[in-house]
Amino acid sequence: MSLSFIDIQAKDNNKVKHLRGLCEQVSYRKKQQQTVLEGVHLIEAYLRTGQPIEAFYLTRQALENPEVQQLLDQNIHAPLYVLTESLYQDVRTLGPGIDIMAIIPTPRSPADINRYSDMLVLENLQDPGNVGTLLRTAAAAGIKQVICSKGTAAIWSPRVLRAGMGAQFSLTIFEHIALETFIPALSLPVYATSSHAQQSLYQLNLQNPCVWLMGNEGQGVSETLMQHAEGIAIPQPGGQESLNVAIAGAICLFEMVRQRLA
Amino acid sequence: MSLSFIDIQAKDNNKVKHLRGLCEQVSYRKKQQQTVLEGVHLIEAYLRTGQPIEAFYLTRQALENPEVQQLLDQNIHAPLYVLTESLYQDVRTLGPGIDIMAIIPTPRSPADINRYSDMLVLENLQDPGNVGTLLRTAAAAGIKQVICSKGTAAIWSPRVLRAGMGAQFSLTIFEHIALETFIPALSLPVYATSSHAQQSLYQLNLQNPCVWLMGNEGQGVSETLMQHAEGIAIPQPGGQESLNVAIAGAICLFEMVRQRLA
Repeated sequence: MSLSFIDIQAKDNNKVKHLRGLCEQVSYRKKQQQTVLEGVHLIEAYLRTGQPIEAFYLTRQALENPEVQQLLDQNIHAPLYVLTESLYQDVRTLGPGIDIMAIIPTPRSPADINRYSDMLVLENLQDPGNVGTLLRTAAAAGIKQVICSKGTAAIWSPRVLRAGMGAQFSLTIFEHIALETFIPALSLPVYATSSHAQQSLYQLNLQNPCVWLMGNEGQGVSETLMQHAEGIAIPQPGGQESLNVAIAGAICLFEMVRQRLA
Repeated sequence: MSLSFIDIQAKDNNKVKHLRGLCEQVSYRKKQQQTVLEGVHLIEAYLRTGQPIEAFYLTRQALENPEVQQLLDQNIHAPLYVLTESLYQDVRTLGPGIDIMAIIPTPRSPADINRYSDMLVLENLQDPGNVGTLLRTAAAAGIKQVICSKGTAAIWSPRVLRAGMGAQFSLTIFEHIALETFIPALSLPVYATSSHAQQSLYQLNLQNPCVWLMGNEGQGVSETLMQHAEGIAIPQPGGQESLNVAIAGAICLFEMVRQRLA
């Protein structure tokens, strides 16, 4: 099959400016209602949802990659922009890999949160790697809903998408939620890890739906929200001060998985 | 108290070149037998080991920070180099934070591995964030020994140190170990997560010392080593393809913690 594509060499080309804007600026992504996926694996995960690609950007070298060719064969209607190597490297926001990016319409949140089903709630998590990793872990653990406060890293940013490895496409995610009104109104138990807590994670009964509240990397869960949560401790025989928030989340979610298997 | 320091403004100053070499080059760190700690928290964790600092580099703004002043008060013998803001930002390898770096002698591995005590073994783990996070998690779980293959990210690099949050200082770590001879000679059970495995993590009896083998981010544990390990699966009700290696490691290590508490 022969593919038709458009060669781009100029830095100030409008298509490149558009891509760069989406890669770098939250406000531009919001205005355009679009975002960028980078890498074959992530684009494939998105395509399995049946949603459309609006455009591909890649290098001439990537165009010769068999995995890329297979991907493009299935998406012959999306325009294909071939950038010079240096132009591509200049625009990309992520690490090395197969050089292909796709512009997609930003998926929309569904209208309603199911208040009686398991949830992961993120309060002001700022590191895109932590947020993406937590989404990937929640999806693996079978949690379907993720609720994010206003201060949490943007779920559809290229970095969070990369760390999530496609988890965004199998979860229902609600952003910009006012947790100070949302959390107190919940009837499910809300658990939050805390270094001051007495109750051990391993003493909880996690058979029934519950809410896992994870806080900011530096400050942890805010005092306001902690008043509406049960503080729990992850026993640490080695006596370290703290665990990375994505690690603490994974330990909690998979203790839930373990109990529900039994 | 008044501190005496040396102002540096020139990019080609020898002290700056030395710091830059340590930040950027594995070979230079090896030759100098020194490495760099960045941030107050990490420097404090190192100081609790009782080992010396060889030099501090910071900005004038950091010099006025109370936490930094307290740190420097305890270390009045190390030379203090004050860089201009732009020079410091140019040299630093890590994200934003309080602008202070310390040069230290690279800690040495002890001579002998205890072959009858728990171990975490890393085979060709390449991402500094994953390696540092696994060290931090192992330390919290009470594992004392970490064994690294030649292809694993350098434990004492600034990035791995940052992600480890001081865990390096409470572990005994052995680098550049030939795992293809080391692993087959072990008498303890060796566990490795594998997507092909039938045996569930939650069916293991983890009361006795064991070895956790974690593989490369892309390829997993090599076939050669897998022949000497028990493959184990982490049940994933959500059906994702894979978990991040640091997450998978944390779930395994804390299942061990849970069983030993009981």
